[in-house]
Amino acid sequence: MERDRLEVTLAELRRRRGSKWTAFAPDVLPAWVADMDFPIAEPIKEAVLGVLERNDAGYPGEASLKELGSAFAMRMSNRFGWEPDPRRIQPVGDLIQAMIASVATLCPAGGGVVIQTPIYPPFLQIVEMLGRHLVDNPLVAGADRYEMDLDGLREAIDDRTRLILFCNPHNPTGRVFERHELEGLAALVLEHDLIVVSDEVHSDLAHAGGTHIPFASLGPEIASRTVTLTAATKAFNIAGLKCALIHFGSKDLKDRQTSVFHPRLLGVPNVFGIEATLAAWRDGEEWLAAVIEQLSANRSRIAGFLGEHLPHVGFHPPEASYLAWLDCGPLGLPSRPHEFFLSEARVALSDGREFSARSDPFVRLNFATAPSVLEEILERMGAAVERAT
Amino acid sequence: MERDRLEVTLAELRRRRGSKWTAFAPDVLPAWVADMDFPIAEPIKEAVLGVLERNDAGYPGEASLKELGSAFAMRMSNRFGWEPDPRRIQPVGDLIQAMIASVATLCPAGGGVVIQTPIYPPFLQIVEMLGRHLVDNPLVAGADRYEMDLDGLREAIDDRTRLILFCNPHNPTGRVFERHELEGLAALVLEHDLIVVSDEVHSDLAHAGGTHIPFASLGPEIASRTVTLTAATKAFNIAGLKCALIHFGSKDLKDRQTSVFHPRLLGVPNVFGIEATLAAWRDGEEWLAAVIEQLSANRSRIAGFLGEHLPHVGFHPPEASYLAWLDCGPLGLPSRPHEFFLSEARVALSDGREFSARSDPFVRLNFATAPSVLEEILERMGAAVERAT
Repeated sequence: MERDRLEVTLAELRRRRGSKWTAFAPDVLPAWVADMDFPIAEPIKEAVLGVLERNDAGYPGEASLKELGSAFAMRMSNRFGWEPDPRRIQPVGDLIQAMIASVATLCPAGGGVVIQTPIYPPFLQIVEMLGRHLVDNPLVAGADRYEMDLDGLREAIDDRTRLILFCNPHNPTGRVFERHELEGLAALVLEHDLIVVSDEVHSDLAHAGGTHIPFASLGPEIASRTVTLTAATKAFNIAGLKCALIHFGSKDLKDRQTSVFHPRLLGVPNVFGIEATLAAWRDGEEWLAAVIEQLSANRSRIAGFLGEHLPHVGFHPPEASYLAWLDCGPLGLPSRPHEFFLSEARVALSDGREFSARSDPFVRLNFATAPSVLEEILERMGAAVERAT
Repeated sequence: MERDRLEVTLAELRRRRGSKWTAFAPDVLPAWVADMDFPIAEPIKEAVLGVLERNDAGYPGEASLKELGSAFAMRMSNRFGWEPDPRRIQPVGDLIQAMIASVATLCPAGGGVVIQTPIYPPFLQIVEMLGRHLVDNPLVAGADRYEMDLDGLREAIDDRTRLILFCNPHNPTGRVFERHELEGLAALVLEHDLIVVSDEVHSDLAHAGGTHIPFASLGPEIASRTVTLTAATKAFNIAGLKCALIHFGSKDLKDRQTSVFHPRLLGVPNVFGIEATLAAWRDGEEWLAAVIEQLSANRSRIAGFLGEHLPHVGFHPPEASYLAWLDCGPLGLPSRPHEFFLSEARVALSDGREFSARSDPFVRLNFATAPSVLEEILERMGAAVERAT
């Protein structure tokens, strides 16, 4: 597939009713919530059209839910050499539901939950909502990329600590953790008898050179204490279709969760979500390859633009996905960065503070858009800084 | 809209992947799960196509979730003279999720839940799943229709009784309860300080002569203790699209439920479900009128066929929806009715026993299909009985 088939115009984007393009005034360019602007993959459109053509909007068949489980298992095996157990898969609407259910049931009240900040804001919200104890284990900025701080984690873990709410590939830093890093974390997990809830929804979006390793694939001991959360929604850009999967690494983990939150309380995916996910996983590779190529090009463009026009902004190009985590502290802006860029550049970025209390100087820039739109985002940001400083 | 536009062929039906047409062998005619066989309404198809055309499969906008609430409020006001409070609406995937959440939070552990059997099986499953005490208040067969047994209910209520899990229009009997019946129930609710969770998902499917009355519309005292569950899924035949609404009659009810089950645990509807529901409620009247006309004709055909060929089957034509609750006891069949009709007529009906322990002799027949298919269902059933008795 040619990259130019991913092109979209601003006029097209502004007709959308989704959150990304409606939350701000019409003169604002949105680069916040993690949706991509690219057109829907053809196989997904065909799957949706197939449902319409068959007049098939009734209760999904048992068979299609099972196909979802086997398509997931086959994909994990083919791409990552991991063999999940199809009997321990629970389809669900979205990953946040799964995350709340897992933390609530697998970490007792008052227990500690490790989070590697900065992090996708719902991680923090869930720990607070459930009244669990936050064990903050910040990533540290290395020379080229963010790194886990396992020494810090060893010190932070105490008797109350029960669970690691893990994010790999990591949002917002874009890290795809390597085997030696994962094994370091796994050693602590075993040593302290922890459970890992691993959000791996960005796993299909690794740029060239990065290879995702499912945490549960590290070995049987780790698998038996890992709940893996995934979906086609991020890589194939169908967050609104609400279809995700929980994989429990052991019968015990599954029983603990489902005995408190019956699967029917969480609900099952809708027929379009199921058919779209199957189509994405079976026939979406060509689209996905073009998207990753475009994202890699956009990532280079950001690095180039920052180097030339905003050299003081801290930026480690992400190894996966389309989120640039930008340290704007060195710019000395007159207001908080996301407010500054919203009011002065008319660009909506995600506010760093939502990703950790210490990330005030940061913004998260979503670069999954047409090159022309990205260009205007960057130019507006550069010009606003130039005017203000 | 002409009724003949609702026609579908068996070949078309057998291509579907949904539950209704795939759960049984290909020679079986399915008349079980409550999906209709009619084509999807044109405005719903257009709404789905609009999402594809806009490439709008990302996170739904806040505005569209709000539109869902106001479309519901406007529909209730226009059709039923009831003014729900848009601030107390929670969108959710499906009604079962809502029902589990409401019973779990609004009836304490060990408390009693009134159910008017025979009833849609999840009502019974939920009370059992949650370990609540079942207060069975069977409907009684009157001369022309099933009736509430309020004297029986008065006797059955005890100190533990906290909640009525109500179904109106009633599934499977098709009753659309009249004002005096609802007021009788309401008096007991107030007298015993009960909460009502009212499943009103069949409310748009009343046949001519029946008028649905929302339980919460009876007055402010009743409203403040009523949780109303509804969706466009049943009337517009989009159960697989997973979009439903909870309306809490008071802030207190809402707080009690959402403090235990955060709305994000239950999840939000998907973008297709939202857009389809909006289209159905705004532009679906013509389709719905044609469907009700067809359902009324099918209902007459069943009454005619039974009168002529199976006069001993007990049948009160439903006042709403497309479910015929058939007492096959008088036929003296050689096996349980749903098993008999599956093996001898190759017709899949719902098993009466699932609707109450005493409903062994009953089956539920879903007659929302093309007249030609209904005809074959009835002929197969008649012939099987003739052969066996």
